[in-house]
Amino acid sequence: MKKLINAPGDVVAHALEGVVRSTPGAALVEGTSVLVRTDLPTDQVAVLCGGGSGHEPAHAGYVGPGHLAGAVCGEVFASPSADAVLSGIRAFRDHPGVLLVVMNYTGDRLNFGLAAQLARAEGIACEMVTVADDVALDADDDVTAGRRGLAGTVLVTKVAGAAAAAGVPLDEVARAARETAGAVGTMGVALSAATVPSAGEPGFVLEHDEIEIGLGIHGEQGVRRESLRPADELVDEVVETVCADRGFARGDRVAVLVNGTGATPPMELSILLRRALENLESRGIGVERAWAGTFLSSIDMAGFSVAVLGLDDERLARLDAPARSAAWPSGSGTVAGGVPTVPDAGVDEAGDLAPSSGVPAPADLRARVEAVCAAVRDAEPRLTELDTATGDGDLGTSLLRGADAVGEELDSYRWDDPVAVLRGIAATLRRAIGGTSGPLYATGLLHAAEHLADGGSWATALQAGADGVSDLGGAKAGDRTMLDALFPAASALAASRSVDEALSAAREGAAATETMAPRRGRSSYLGDRVHGHRDAGAEAVTVWLAALASEA
Amino acid sequence: MKKLINAPGDVVAHALEGVVRSTPGAALVEGTSVLVRTDLPTDQVAVLCGGGSGHEPAHAGYVGPGHLAGAVCGEVFASPSADAVLSGIRAFRDHPGVLLVVMNYTGDRLNFGLAAQLARAEGIACEMVTVADDVALDADDDVTAGRRGLAGTVLVTKVAGAAAAAGVPLDEVARAARETAGAVGTMGVALSAATVPSAGEPGFVLEHDEIEIGLGIHGEQGVRRESLRPADELVDEVVETVCADRGFARGDRVAVLVNGTGATPPMELSILLRRALENLESRGIGVERAWAGTFLSSIDMAGFSVAVLGLDDERLARLDAPARSAAWPSGSGTVAGGVPTVPDAGVDEAGDLAPSSGVPAPADLRARVEAVCAAVRDAEPRLTELDTATGDGDLGTSLLRGADAVGEELDSYRWDDPVAVLRGIAATLRRAIGGTSGPLYATGLLHAAEHLADGGSWATALQAGADGVSDLGGAKAGDRTMLDALFPAASALAASRSVDEALSAAREGAAATETMAPRRGRSSYLGDRVHGHRDAGAEAVTVWLAALASEA
Repeated sequence: MKKLINAPGDVVAHALEGVVRSTPGAALVEGTSVLVRTDLPTDQVAVLCGGGSGHEPAHAGYVGPGHLAGAVCGEVFASPSADAVLSGIRAFRDHPGVLLVVMNYTGDRLNFGLAAQLARAEGIACEMVTVADDVALDADDDVTAGRRGLAGTVLVTKVAGAAAAAGVPLDEVARAARETAGAVGTMGVALSAATVPSAGEPGFVLEHDEIEIGLGIHGEQGVRRESLRPADELVDEVVETVCADRGFARGDRVAVLVNGTGATPPMELSILLRRALENLESRGIGVERAWAGTFLSSIDMAGFSVAVLGLDDERLARLDAPARSAAWPSGSGTVAGGVPTVPDAGVDEAGDLAPSSGVPAPADLRARVEAVCAAVRDAEPRLTELDTATGDGDLGTSLLRGADAVGEELDSYRWDDPVAVLRGIAATLRRAIGGTSGPLYATGLLHAAEHLADGGSWATALQAGADGVSDLGGAKAGDRTMLDALFPAASALAASRSVDEALSAAREGAAATETMAPRRGRSSYLGDRVHGHRDAGAEAVTVWLAALASEA
Repeated sequence: MKKLINAPGDVVAHALEGVVRSTPGAALVEGTSVLVRTDLPTDQVAVLCGGGSGHEPAHAGYVGPGHLAGAVCGEVFASPSADAVLSGIRAFRDHPGVLLVVMNYTGDRLNFGLAAQLARAEGIACEMVTVADDVALDADDDVTAGRRGLAGTVLVTKVAGAAAAAGVPLDEVARAARETAGAVGTMGVALSAATVPSAGEPGFVLEHDEIEIGLGIHGEQGVRRESLRPADELVDEVVETVCADRGFARGDRVAVLVNGTGATPPMELSILLRRALENLESRGIGVERAWAGTFLSSIDMAGFSVAVLGLDDERLARLDAPARSAAWPSGSGTVAGGVPTVPDAGVDEAGDLAPSSGVPAPADLRARVEAVCAAVRDAEPRLTELDTATGDGDLGTSLLRGADAVGEELDSYRWDDPVAVLRGIAATLRRAIGGTSGPLYATGLLHAAEHLADGGSWATALQAGADGVSDLGGAKAGDRTMLDALFPAASALAASRSVDEALSAAREGAAATETMAPRRGRSSYLGDRVHGHRDAGAEAVTVWLAALASEA
């Protein structure tokens, strides 16, 4: 059992302490595992929920204004005692009434039911509403212990809590809860079993690719076991089973809650929600609210359930009413029809529409660019070999991809304006290369273009580009990067105005990287293992400088 | 790989569709994985975050009023392209500026940095703030690629989003973000590795009881591997490392974010939060806000991180400012000093303080109760044997526990008032037995007491009790429960006023359960396997009725 706990016997008490201490206005009833609001206005009905623990954030995570007044927490997967429930009820004896929302499990029904009876004997107005939203099993109450309560319970308490916060009397709050419980259907799918801390091992075993459809939140048997299927198929079956059971059909209005069972990543829950919306809309059922999250878990079970709740205006308003608790995503959930999109506000930064910079173009500019492309293509095997020894191994193919793209787009550049050409090539490389080389070459070219546009010379444009690369990447000279060839070349070019001199300086710089320790990127983790290998990025600088030199 | 997905290549697009469709006022930029608000007031700066996917709900889950204006989502664990970032920025070109909040990973820094540069070239005011809150590794930027961004990023975007929503200019929003990034430290612990969907298997393997301290959110190496320790010890190390690094000390004010890494159950996160609060407070550091949840995950990694953020009044106000998004728990998180408790508002329902019912007590009442206790003790082995065949096997020991408790509390009952005696015994049994028998016997006794108090006779009190049991438990005659002995006995007693007649009827009823199919409780799942076995609950009724009959 790999759990972030202290001792199995402490989990409920410790978790509740964490919750109560970060829940404004909440307190534990002394000597109990009962969490109550201390700031509930005395003219409001108190809505309490509870049951065995292990379903966090349910129910303690929903204690707060607009939702629950309290949560009565049993041990893991075990009903709290009637006395604990009674302690929770008594905390609100000065209020106009107490509503207990209970999931349909025998122990909970008995203990909450008995507590309600005891409370009434003490003169406290107390009602109880049972939630039995699981549609996986036969609804015939005569055959089994009856339908079980699942994550739809959270929607019931949300509606009841909103009604109570609106100041309506107990019988109205109870009616809202009872009608909501009758209008919600839920079904679950498990990918793994929960491990009760005191048991120390999973309640059952699902094979590597096996799932169970319709499993209960304590591991109660479901409908069947089968092999894992694509998420969309599972959602379709669950949603359609719920709709058939609850009678949801074209024209109906619903809310959807996609619930994770404890160990299900949020990414997967969003994928499930997407399909639930698609499925319901394809059948003409109007989804007005939807949420995905871990609302009522089964300890560390991987899996999900989908609850679908029928809506009318009153119930929708109750769902939308503000609630301030750790676990209810107040203010979210409004559903748009279809996938909302906006157009990409793109502009052509290659400069088709921009005014010319007025910088005169060298006559052989296109030839030089073509030469560089050819040289980079030729050098691909050598660069790949170097980069494989010390980096990701992708530098050769990345630059090859860039050279090919520039070659294909040669006709699109405005050759009469070198600023536009450099900007255009920057855009091409950025899109074609990706990774780290794409942005770095792009920024170098952009800085060089800006330098020219601002009246700088070609001789100093290389320095401007190198500085741009250093700024963006954060590397300095000696960090064993392309800059160890680029900086010396730029200095030499500025001083001598000779590309040959720049090439010589670049070659010396590239050779010097063989004894440098890597400080940037992935090779920084390799340490001494790179000694004797030349940095591929620095070597690449010598490749295109050589091409420029031969054309010059 | 057991994931709720369709195909590995679809996960980002499918998850984003789920998010955008349930995020009011949000849309996807066409042809991209960029989620943007369409309802951001044009006088507000846009705060964008982003990076590789797999960290849900970060960052798309925080898009909404008061938090992010947009999220630029790359493929799983891969930076989005500069062009994607640029599309996100351009969506807000009519706003007074765009702030990019970027986690300190090379690809993100390059692509977001280049996009900012391109945006500025288009005349869009754009700033970038990098978050590098991981304190696990050496801070020396010269040695590695630098500190990594972790879950503290969510606090940075919350503060920046609140500043932007308050209408302050871009440089102010950027300052608030930069200062927050500088004031937060975070460290993580992994219990398992993440499985990138396209890879299909975990990035590395941790042994059964092995954890890694200081692991990065993409599985980058941490500080060390070791055996799992109690949660409190892990939290202590993490919190103390963060505080030492950030220089938090006695008298400082902080906020704490306990973050789950994707497959960590909410219960465990609350247990971790509890200790983080204890640890900080024990060292005189004032925790003013605290949250536990899955804020920035690593796909399906099990584990956690703790972020501690230094506070001043301005930053606290920004954290508290309302935000409406799916993933930020707005309005929660205020921390109370110590564990807040309220006294249990208990009353002694045994009736010590209640006025006497005035119902005359039978002279042999105490002797009859003692006889029942003795008979139940004697019957324990037989009841256990019966219940083992068809139920939980705990009925015999449960009733024994009840008989012992009543025996111990005999002197506490008000023997001059039979109503008070029945209520007192009900309270004793409720506390001592638990499970289902405790509440059922308690409610039966309470209903009988109420019947007597209302002027009913002893002869019909058994019927009142049986009805109460049926009401609470939901069982009917023929369901193979205690009621199959209790109902016939009650009818016989009411008709004949003879306990012996009642006992005979109960014995016939109990015998009849041997051929009944179970419909309630756990044995309902056993079906025909219980045939030929007598129901233990019904048999127990004959045990105490026989004791009453022999005393009568």
